[in-house]
Amino acid sequence: MDIEARLAALGLTLPPPVVIAPHIRLPFAFVRVSGNRAYISGHAPLDLDGRVARPLGKVGSDLTIEQGYEAARLTALSILGSLRRTLGDLDRVTSWLRIFGMVNAAPGFTDLPTVINGCSDLILELYGPERGAHARSAVGLAELPFNIPVEIEAEVAIA
Amino acid sequence: MDIEARLAALGLTLPPPVVIAPHIRLPFAFVRVSGNRAYISGHAPLDLDGRVARPLGKVGSDLTIEQGYEAARLTALSILGSLRRTLGDLDRVTSWLRIFGMVNAAPGFTDLPTVINGCSDLILELYGPERGAHARSAVGLAELPFNIPVEIEAEVAIA
Amino acid sequence: MDIEARLAALGLTLPPPVVIAPHIRLPFAFVRVSGNRAYISGHAPLDLDGRVARPLGKVGSDLTIEQGYEAARLTALSILGSLRRTLGDLDRVTSWLRIFGMVNAAPGFTDLPTVINGCSDLILELYGPERGAHARSAVGLAELPFNIPVEIEAEVAIA
Repeated sequence: MDIEARLAALGLTLPPPVVIAPHIRLPFAFVRVSGNRAYISGHAPLDLDGRVARPLGKVGSDLTIEQGYEAARLTALSILGSLRRTLGDLDRVTSWLRIFGMVNAAPGFTDLPTVINGCSDLILELYGPERGAHARSAVGLAELPFNIPVEIEAEVAIA
Repeated sequence: MDIEARLAALGLTLPPPVVIAPHIRLPFAFVRVSGNRAYISGHAPLDLDGRVARPLGKVGSDLTIEQGYEAARLTALSILGSLRRTLGDLDRVTSWLRIFGMVNAAPGFTDLPTVINGCSDLILELYGPERGAHARSAVGLAELPFNIPVEIEAEVAIA
Repeated sequence: MDIEARLAALGLTLPPPVVIAPHIRLPFAFVRVSGNRAYISGHAPLDLDGRVARPLGKVGSDLTIEQGYEAARLTALSILGSLRRTLGDLDRVTSWLRIFGMVNAAPGFTDLPTVINGCSDLILELYGPERGAHARSAVGLAELPFNIPVEIEAEVAIA
């Protein structure tokens, strides 16, 4: 079964590009392709209209750990949306390589891996244990853009 | 027009390697080349004598956002200085791939993308929209070395 | 002299995989190989039984800088343990490329490079100045998983 079919089977829809306030400029590529690699910019959790998903704030105070997990899952969907727009077909991703998971962490909140599992679990569910396997870090940042709870950067191999 | 000519046309000079206090050791390569990739260490904003540029501190309290933007632009020039010393010629960079922008963020300061635009804008001005396109993250760190306001790590493709 | 022989000559033993609390899931690869690259997940300092090494906490308050240096050295040993398990032989690493050193930094603690030197020094001692050379960043995170004092992510070229 290909990735698009799995997305459909799971009832998942990918969001459009992020909608930002008019005074903000983001002069970079959401996905940068070079040879057989795609470099993926730091992505945010989005609603299906492209707006940054709520709640905003720090995991461990403004968000529960379950809400943090959900934000990381939404961020994976944002990344998949960008990959589909750039690559044309999510099956061109032959291997996930690196996921760098950044949590907007409340002071003393250290269960960062469980939050970023929201991304890893979805990638593994869609791509399976071989193509979906990835190196990962899950760390707590002091601040993230627009006060989003999770930001994720990644790198994949492509055909 | 090549990159050196564009730098000259813009009146820009690249700084020498960073000058650090004698008790600090930095036992790594500012640029590490492997095959057609160059991995660029986290760089600081520098003055033309190689000293860390002032002001130091956190963007959003010690520095205004405009000063943060300028620090990110100076950091791009530091990176270009290291690339020229390692590669011999800035035109060997065929594609910018990844810019990881780290801001020394005051509590509650979240306009991190606007700060790192100081780097992205200069790279795009010099390399144009195709060679200069890059994936990017812009995030808020708790502390940076020597209390610099911005640190930027990057990866480029080279000929 | 090969890397295993150097480890033995230095009297160094590599730890087993990290032992974590049963309620924590880490659904990712400690090392992800693709072509001639190995992507290394964020690693923690470990004891020889695989448990997270003590002391935990923030460098600059809970740990001295010397203890932070030792934590970074232990983290390098954790990474080497994962590389040996994945690659079979540490001599398959032909070049270190990128070390991303993350310090759990107490407020105002900025001597992050000296902490991460604990990793860089060991890699250079083992692999020498050519194979061991690497690009590096050393930065202060707000929180790290399980309150570890240091986490290090890396990328290497392999034969």
